[in-house]
Amino acid sequence: MGRLIGVGTGPGDPELLTVKAVRALGEADVVAYFAKAGRNGNGRAVVEGLLKADLVELPLYYPVTTEIDKDDEAYKRQITAFYNASAERVAAHLEAGRTVAVLSEGDPLFYGSYMHLHVRLAGRFPAEVIPGITAMSGCWSVAGLPLVQGDEVLSVLPGTMGEAELQRRLADTEAAVIMKVGRNLPKIRRALAAAGRLDAAVYVERGTMKNAAMVPLGEKPDDAAPYFSLVLVPGWKDRPGAGERS
Amino acid sequence: MGRLIGVGTGPGDPELLTVKAVRALGEADVVAYFAKAGRNGNGRAVVEGLLKADLVELPLYYPVTTEIDKDDEAYKRQITAFYNASAERVAAHLEAGRTVAVLSEGDPLFYGSYMHLHVRLAGRFPAEVIPGITAMSGCWSVAGLPLVQGDEVLSVLPGTMGEAELQRRLADTEAAVIMKVGRNLPKIRRALAAAGRLDAAVYVERGTMKNAAMVPLGEKPDDAAPYFSLVLVPGWKDRPGAGERS
Repeated sequence: MGRLIGVGTGPGDPELLTVKAVRALGEADVVAYFAKAGRNGNGRAVVEGLLKADLVELPLYYPVTTEIDKDDEAYKRQITAFYNASAERVAAHLEAGRTVAVLSEGDPLFYGSYMHLHVRLAGRFPAEVIPGITAMSGCWSVAGLPLVQGDEVLSVLPGTMGEAELQRRLADTEAAVIMKVGRNLPKIRRALAAAGRLDAAVYVERGTMKNAAMVPLGEKPDDAAPYFSLVLVPGWKDRPGAGERS
Repeated sequence: MGRLIGVGTGPGDPELLTVKAVRALGEADVVAYFAKAGRNGNGRAVVEGLLKADLVELPLYYPVTTEIDKDDEAYKRQITAFYNASAERVAAHLEAGRTVAVLSEGDPLFYGSYMHLHVRLAGRFPAEVIPGITAMSGCWSVAGLPLVQGDEVLSVLPGTMGEAELQRRLADTEAAVIMKVGRNLPKIRRALAAAGRLDAAVYVERGTMKNAAMVPLGEKPDDAAPYFSLVLVPGWKDRPGAGERS
């Protein structure tokens, strides 16, 4: 029987893979990854050059669902059927004794697509998860922004959340990371201002990519943002030099 | 002028260092790390064998403060003086043109001791932060526990927090990580039970060490816990197979 390995590919810089991930990728018989139809996905690009020559590639293309609302029952049925079918395609390789590495951007069990395969297969096959650097960690490291310290609370919040709820949670935490920014940026900006946290917020896009960009959110002149940009609200207000701009 | 590099050493397994961290450690002229007097600290053990032969070691030993309350002004003065003096010791090497790698367990800017040097030195010297796998990520990966998914909220909470406050926050989040467990475990257990989350909670100690242990918290027969153990409360309640024990 083969082995299932969820491999965290980190925030985008190939050097931010772990030593363990590099080794596992070099030993895998099959590499599987979720991607939009016709694309390879960022995770696949990051591991270029690390794979065996005779490796089998198993891209798992999401069904095209742009016209369906994500809360719609038809969408839920379609995406569940897709994850079920994807798990069976991976299972066929595992049953044939192959080691299957599943690429997962960031960290596999932290908002990662790998989780949909893990919950379907980890009870049936030997499974291992190799953690990865999260996108948020890549972002605050590039920004050189101390995020959270001592006994502080960190809240990781989706930008898709309602405005009042977002404001309430931002006012109720020392530090925050807001994910899934994209077209939610105007709402996020208003919620931060209402919670008295806009001055501290930093906007980061394309985290550890070569064309990374970051700016205090209060100084960003427009509301254009890719979906995978982040807003960081650091804690540790009384840190030395906190009043200065570094 | 030298370069300051905060290096995340991850949760304890040397294979969970990033490729970038390994390279930076092999090139550093000086390796600095915080540790208790007479000890080397976990971060130093993890990088054994990765350092240059003629490397300068700069252990920064915390002042002995066991008899002083952490909220006491005398403690705050003493620890601030220690961080100031430590920064100057590192600065002397940077001024001499040496590259100084500062080891930081987990991720440097996520509750890491490196932050105390970063805020004092990053404005004066070229500084870079290499992210690391956090202890919490190492723990949920070893446990194979999908932590958070889709549009869920994650709250990272210190176990030192008051019981009522901890209960309130546990009832107000989809997923939680409780850090600094130690002697706070009985209180954490009560807060989880009152918030209706005890059944889902998983206790993990010594995350990715060889002697890692994990158990559903409701089944842990005692309240003994090392300080750096964690309690994980996963979200994604409607995941496939969520009712089964894996």
